[in-house]
Amino acid sequence: MANGDEVSNEQILFRDYISGFPKETDMILSTTGTIRLKVPEGSNSVLLKNLYLSCDPYMRGRMTQSDSYVAAFTPGKPITGYAVSEVLDSGNPNFEKGDYVWGFAGWEQYSLIENPHPMSLMKISYTDVPLSYYTGILGMTGMTAYVGFNVLASPKKGESVYVSAASGAVGQMVGQFAKIMGCYVVGSAGSKEKVDLLKNKFGFDDAFNYKEEPDWTATLKRYFPKGIDIYFENVGGKMLEAVLPNMAVRGRIPVCGMISQYNLQQHDGIHNLTQLLKKRVRMEGFNVSDHYHLYPEFMELMKQYFMDEKLVYVEDMVEGIESAPVALIGLFTGQNVGKQVVKVSHE
Amino acid sequence: MANGDEVSNEQILFRDYISGFPKETDMILSTTGTIRLKVPEGSNSVLLKNLYLSCDPYMRGRMTQSDSYVAAFTPGKPITGYAVSEVLDSGNPNFEKGDYVWGFAGWEQYSLIENPHPMSLMKISYTDVPLSYYTGILGMTGMTAYVGFNVLASPKKGESVYVSAASGAVGQMVGQFAKIMGCYVVGSAGSKEKVDLLKNKFGFDDAFNYKEEPDWTATLKRYFPKGIDIYFENVGGKMLEAVLPNMAVRGRIPVCGMISQYNLQQHDGIHNLTQLLKKRVRMEGFNVSDHYHLYPEFMELMKQYFMDEKLVYVEDMVEGIESAPVALIGLFTGQNVGKQVVKVSHE
Repeated sequence: MANGDEVSNEQILFRDYISGFPKETDMILSTTGTIRLKVPEGSNSVLLKNLYLSCDPYMRGRMTQSDSYVAAFTPGKPITGYAVSEVLDSGNPNFEKGDYVWGFAGWEQYSLIENPHPMSLMKISYTDVPLSYYTGILGMTGMTAYVGFNVLASPKKGESVYVSAASGAVGQMVGQFAKIMGCYVVGSAGSKEKVDLLKNKFGFDDAFNYKEEPDWTATLKRYFPKGIDIYFENVGGKMLEAVLPNMAVRGRIPVCGMISQYNLQQHDGIHNLTQLLKKRVRMEGFNVSDHYHLYPEFMELMKQYFMDEKLVYVEDMVEGIESAPVALIGLFTGQNVGKQVVKVSHE
Repeated sequence: MANGDEVSNEQILFRDYISGFPKETDMILSTTGTIRLKVPEGSNSVLLKNLYLSCDPYMRGRMTQSDSYVAAFTPGKPITGYAVSEVLDSGNPNFEKGDYVWGFAGWEQYSLIENPHPMSLMKISYTDVPLSYYTGILGMTGMTAYVGFNVLASPKKGESVYVSAASGAVGQMVGQFAKIMGCYVVGSAGSKEKVDLLKNKFGFDDAFNYKEEPDWTATLKRYFPKGIDIYFENVGGKMLEAVLPNMAVRGRIPVCGMISQYNLQQHDGIHNLTQLLKKRVRMEGFNVSDHYHLYPEFMELMKQYFMDEKLVYVEDMVEGIESAPVALIGLFTGQNVGKQVVKVSHE
């Protein structure tokens, strides 16, 4: 096949805006598309072969027309998200054929990226780890944990940290960053398997299965008799309500996500926000995309951690682009253990 | 009367812990107490003649046994709070007879303060303004506005500011600080008289009567079509719920109080905290007592503002210690216009 010929390009299309839980049928596998594996003459574009697609909870927000902090998906067009890709052709001076990159791409075998923004497509230079790590620990996920915990929560040695959804892609990183920082860290997750991972693999000081705890306020009181200095918020709703009375004075709550709320028609009411006053708590929603200027400092730190073997990382990898819809939906029922990745092509 | 003699000392005693709205009968006027107007020989104490008592919303929390960030009142003992006083006698090297001070004292004509903490009793040196101002604009109230707005909310020229309970002691200061900073500021209050004050006396760009607005979310959208950069939170509950979708990206909410909630058996549920994520909002509860190290810098600023005639201030003064219970209770139904002060004695 010559590079100028069109090849088949399987895609996952977004069907239409939804409310409630996303279903596999909200996405459509299209096998009829084709693409030319060259960028248009004189263009600034980059032609990517996608290797790994990242499944992330924030993508739920993009399935609703009006209520997300990132643009909604376009019905009938491919889902878009973070990916690791190989450059097949480039008209852009920042990229050349053979480069590996991570950033925004379509859920498809090949993507033509027009005028890539420097913060939305980044060249991979450190390759001592699997490339798929750039969908997670070395990409948006790792940066999210770093920004929320190390930057916004200003952790200090000896402080007490609670992480919800702790075995998820971000949570497992936060727990490890907290241990490196000398904190006491407890995580919660939704199965015995995940709790075991937290304690035995990720080095959390302790962990519990929230599904087996009838009264989370009491549970947290047990794990944190002196209060929680930092709550890394991934869950929202009733878990937040249980956390607030357990916060320590001048505690911090970086709000990374509220996954328990995204699929509810009516969000849970939080009745104890006066705790913010009582404990002088700072609660801060953040979006990693505001902080990518910190990526170089993050990468320096991460390379050092990898060299010192201070980090472990668990991926939940499925094969084939056709598996992507089920993998994404699984995030919202906690099917995944670790970072959910879809392998699209061999490197 | 010799100083060593005992004199009558009228007091306002706290009856017992309450739930729900405080009532006048939760406090008792005692006219039977006496006090010796000398400090004990060799003590470190200070004997105060109280001139002005400060009525503040946080005092509601002290009427409940377990759920406040400051110690509860003691049943059968005098209410305590901020006051402006004259030193009648002192065994403490930091104070001498004739000094004027502000800080913590009892709701009584005379108070014996044992071992006063430097941050809980402060000498008044700047006296170009009425002494009662140290219960408010130059005391805890002014510091609260300064810490919450100027320090924690990091205001920038041209930003949009919304203040609830805006004609109250703190709110009127925040509005003026915001104007000095070059912000656009809108306040809400609960009567036409208060709204007029905000617009015509305190220099708010605009103001509205929340009791006449059926849909606060829509009202705020009208006043802030581009969103609220800083919401100075005094109210909580349904007002907070209306504010959240109207916040601008990277907005700040210093949480000074949530007066709408203090007397409810069941606090309002806030259903839209995912807005913190969507808009990357920082919400921070604070307590002025953590920040009194900033008092000298605050006073320098305030003296300059007074000299430049940049500030106006409204007090709601009642006469006689017997009026104190009604004055305090009036805060929770919005009876006061401006800072509620009780004049106990002539200077």
